[in-house]
Amino acid sequence: MTDRHAAPPAAAAPAVRMVAAVDIGATKTLVTVRPAATAGAGDRTARSSAWSVGADVARLATDRDAASLADRIALEVRALLAGSGGRLVAVGVGAPGPLDPATGLVVHSPNLGWRDVPLGRLLSERLDAPVALEDDANAAALGEWQFGAGAGADPFAFITVSSGVGSGIVVGGALLRGAHGLAGEVGHLTVDAEGPRCGCGRRGCVEAYVGGAALARRARQSWRSELLADGSPAPRDADGVLRAARHGDPVALGLAGEAAEALGRALAAVAASIDPQRIAVGGALALGQPALVRRAVSIARRRCIRETAQALTVVPAALGAESVLAGAAAAALRLASERAPS
Amino acid sequence: MTDRHAAPPAAAAPAVRMVAAVDIGATKTLVTVRPAATAGAGDRTARSSAWSVGADVARLATDRDAASLADRIALEVRALLAGSGGRLVAVGVGAPGPLDPATGLVVHSPNLGWRDVPLGRLLSERLDAPVALEDDANAAALGEWQFGAGAGADPFAFITVSSGVGSGIVVGGALLRGAHGLAGEVGHLTVDAEGPRCGCGRRGCVEAYVGGAALARRARQSWRSELLADGSPAPRDADGVLRAARHGDPVALGLAGEAAEALGRALAAVAASIDPQRIAVGGALALGQPALVRRAVSIARRRCIRETAQALTVVPAALGAESVLAGAAAAALRLASERAPS
Repeated sequence: MTDRHAAPPAAAAPAVRMVAAVDIGATKTLVTVRPAATAGAGDRTARSSAWSVGADVARLATDRDAASLADRIALEVRALLAGSGGRLVAVGVGAPGPLDPATGLVVHSPNLGWRDVPLGRLLSERLDAPVALEDDANAAALGEWQFGAGAGADPFAFITVSSGVGSGIVVGGALLRGAHGLAGEVGHLTVDAEGPRCGCGRRGCVEAYVGGAALARRARQSWRSELLADGSPAPRDADGVLRAARHGDPVALGLAGEAAEALGRALAAVAASIDPQRIAVGGALALGQPALVRRAVSIARRRCIRETAQALTVVPAALGAESVLAGAAAAALRLASERAPS
Repeated sequence: MTDRHAAPPAAAAPAVRMVAAVDIGATKTLVTVRPAATAGAGDRTARSSAWSVGADVARLATDRDAASLADRIALEVRALLAGSGGRLVAVGVGAPGPLDPATGLVVHSPNLGWRDVPLGRLLSERLDAPVALEDDANAAALGEWQFGAGAGADPFAFITVSSGVGSGIVVGGALLRGAHGLAGEVGHLTVDAEGPRCGCGRRGCVEAYVGGAALARRARQSWRSELLADGSPAPRDADGVLRAARHGDPVALGLAGEAAEALGRALAAVAASIDPQRIAVGGALALGQPALVRRAVSIARRRCIRETAQALTVVPAALGAESVLAGAAAAALRLASERAPS
């Protein structure tokens, strides 16, 4: 590695403290750096509206070779830092799990084909800064709590619906990780034990109805022809299925109803368990289909006690595709504040 | 009121600091006093094995006239205190909710026929001590965490199955009450939206299958005759239904299977939401029917992801009929330690 991206010499005036945030997705990896000062550093309960979506975010292709991906992330962070003139104090990473935040190990990520990848160490060696690693749903929950739709809510829950379904919970401003890092795994609660086969191997999970991949697969299996009843081509993705439902296609209507019921069950399970002050729903599928979410909320109100139904408050995620990235930044800020010089 | 139960004169040697604990049930009210020192007072994370079940517990009939019940509770506390020679520093009460721990108000308790009863004030006026009020499921969770099956677990969940189904959650040694005091209300999650009518007015709730009252009612509706197939009398209560299932009665077998499925769904919802280190199951019905609970645990493992299933640890409640009473004592100890002279 050359040192053309090295930090300025120590004799210069103290550089602005910066954190790096990384969102490793199945196909794309987002990277950004932000000043530690403008975003609530030093106070884990501080929140800031300083997250401007789309500002200075680099997009890399996700590489299944973790060391190579870490190399490219590190180069990108150095380039962004050089542009800012700042000094890196911590790195936050959101990645698909299961993973272990304490050791920085990605235990097993089917989406990335990773098993026992020491992602935290790979990045901290390359960037000479401490790394906080969170699973993507937890990171997104933390990001929305600190910078977005969860501001001030206690407890706060975040549910993401895209290809799959995940969630994260924030209690007292801190992630509720659970005893084994598995809190918020509501995507595989059973709706109907004799329902459709889920990617996890069981039947009738929430994700088997409302996850985008499952919804598209069910639609392909249900339509016997390449054309819908109105002569238009049968859609190949979840958004197309939900659009066909709005146009009255009977197969799509049935699938959309079951998807709303499944998301409603997940919302009800979280609401009944932790009584959140607010639930934010994000993920590409949910954010693009507000009618589906509204219907799911209405169903959730019929799936728990009256008091819980009345108290249920569901809002859209505020950070769009950057919930995870903002959460990675929030995790880095917390790490930096824990290690800040007094 | 006479003063024959009054505290000893202030000139005497400082009396031992005592807390009173009260469990107000639908028909019986339990009252006890315990030394504040032997049971973890002054340290909300301290636990003690000092809870001996059955020691010095008074049993009163529950009175729907709240002021009269408060009178009799206060007399009983004074009598127990006089026997101990101690000085009362705090009172803890577990009662059926919904109620507001912050104001000591029982908002609405259908079982007691109470609405907006200022139970905290009624008792603190009579006993001249601060009162901590918790709903019975939360109190039981706290009691099992501090003195029983939940010792050291974080998070810890307690599910009670008797006439109805309730639960409470302890995170970091403190009750997770939720934003509106409704955390842990998993008894009315929907198992099947077209299932049997529940006492709450909706259909197919967990409680509509496994709550003792509902199970007995379903059995009475299912058996067309006063006699079972083997000629024995049709049972009138939930334990009898489950016994008939063990003897092979086909109607009872069906109901017992649905009860296990429902309890399994509640366990899975709690496990997936908060990833508890341990779940304790208590309540008269569950404690008397270990086979039902074992079957429910086995079902719960099939209703969530594999990692959650592997981590799921379910144990019987350790304090039997005194979970709520012990939790009331724990709440009183916490209140006393907050207000203790330095």
